Amino acid sequence: MSAAAAAPTRVTAAVMIIGDEILSGRTQDTNLNAIAKYLGVHGVDLAEARVVPDDKDEIITALNHLRAKYDYVLTTGGIGPTHDDITADCVAEAFGVALYEHPEIIAMMTARWNGVELNAARRRMARVPEGGALIRNPISGPPGFCIGNVFVMAGVPQVMRGMLEDVGWRLNGGAVVISRNVRVEGSGEGVIAEPLERVAKAHPDLSLGSYPFFGPEGYGSNLVIRGRDAGELAAVVDELVAALRGAGIEKIMPDAAAAN
Amino acid sequence: MSAAAAAPTRVTAAVMIIGDEILSGRTQDTNLNAIAKYLGVHGVDLAEARVVPDDKDEIITALNHLRAKYDYVLTTGGIGPTHDDITADCVAEAFGVALYEHPEIIAMMTARWNGVELNAARRRMARVPEGGALIRNPISGPPGFCIGNVFVMAGVPQVMRGMLEDVGWRLNGGAVVISRNVRVEGSGEGVIAEPLERVAKAHPDLSLGSYPFFGPEGYGSNLVIRGRDAGELAAVVDELVAALRGAGIEKIMPDAAAAN
Repeated sequence: MSAAAAAPTRVTAAVMIIGDEILSGRTQDTNLNAIAKYLGVHGVDLAEARVVPDDKDEIITALNHLRAKYDYVLTTGGIGPTHDDITADCVAEAFGVALYEHPEIIAMMTARWNGVELNAARRRMARVPEGGALIRNPISGPPGFCIGNVFVMAGVPQVMRGMLEDVGWRLNGGAVVISRNVRVEGSGEGVIAEPLERVAKAHPDLSLGSYPFFGPEGYGSNLVIRGRDAGELAAVVDELVAALRGAGIEKIMPDAAAAN
Repeated sequence: MSAAAAAPTRVTAAVMIIGDEILSGRTQDTNLNAIAKYLGVHGVDLAEARVVPDDKDEIITALNHLRAKYDYVLTTGGIGPTHDDITADCVAEAFGVALYEHPEIIAMMTARWNGVELNAARRRMARVPEGGALIRNPISGPPGFCIGNVFVMAGVPQVMRGMLEDVGWRLNGGAVVISRNVRVEGSGEGVIAEPLERVAKAHPDLSLGSYPFFGPEGYGSNLVIRGRDAGELAAVVDELVAALRGAGIEKIMPDAAAAN
């Protein structure tokens, strides 16, 4: 089924979430999920994610590891005006370049805060590593930036999502990953596992996962097949349904079509 | 203020979330947040989190790094009966021990599935690394396990939370971290940053962060002070409120008491 030569290129990314507030439990992160979905649509596989504290050494070490290992790194958080916002400093140090006040950001802030002093804290937000390009912020506050294969975005979810829209066109994505879902009700993974594994082993180029659910309304599992070829996925859905029926499972509901 | 000798011990942990479904964006993780809060109450600081795919090499490499660096590692996901559930295999390999079928789990499953065949898939869930101890599962399905400083739990949130209740008593926590919140409305971080930084620099043993909000109801920021001494925190709240007032900020609302 899958020849290595025919496999479409896999383009990978890592997400680095920067912020003590996620690690302390104060804030429930939602950026990772939004970025994962966005990358999938652009043909980029999210391969790893890390949550790191507002600590210079930790941020630089993780960033240098991730940007060497994956095609892209997207960071969220730590780009505001307060003393704990150290992402720009860390990215500049990781790349071995200096920070400078970007004239476009200074002009933008001057226009927005007409008459209000551009104090040291506000000027912090205008700092961009040398060689970096701006990521448009359509929501509020100053832009993010990218340098090399690293995209630096805000942590506030609505701002991050706004910035993300200015990231996609810069990504050189591979074939888009699509998925099919086969829902099984009234049978547990103990029964599903054998036929599922048999089909998975026959298609090593696809990802097949089982995500059980149970609650007052019943139990079962969603079997998710991921790949890059809609025709292949459709054939494997048929194969999986047949294998499940062969194992005596009756309530099988394949999705009508592929989804991202 | 803070003498190194007087600083209470900091006990650290990392969380490792195992699962393609989080990285693909299919599932919004909530386990990290639940674990972070739980650890905080037990005097353990969550210092880092990683999300890794269902890939043996990635899981083992990350686990060996994290268990050497932090006091504890808590993992979620990958302990079901299907072929993509490889956490037990990876943990055993990381520790260099074999897996064996735990008789208690086999007995538990035999009792639950009275008359139903304990097939190969179900027996997978009974496998525990040699030297491991069980983590009780009060919700559904087989238990988790711990070995060394690593705690292996289910990925389904309600099951994970149930297992977590059997983890706390095994943690040798440090002093519990408490926090105070000072809410500022109608002033942005550009104004808040300077007084906040001044107070933060005077108390290097505490963590002070600024978490801005804005929306139809207005804008402002929550200033969060974290530490281990309620008296010190109360004094710093007063100091911060005075500093903010000195910067011309009027709408300042400190929380009444410390919270975890």
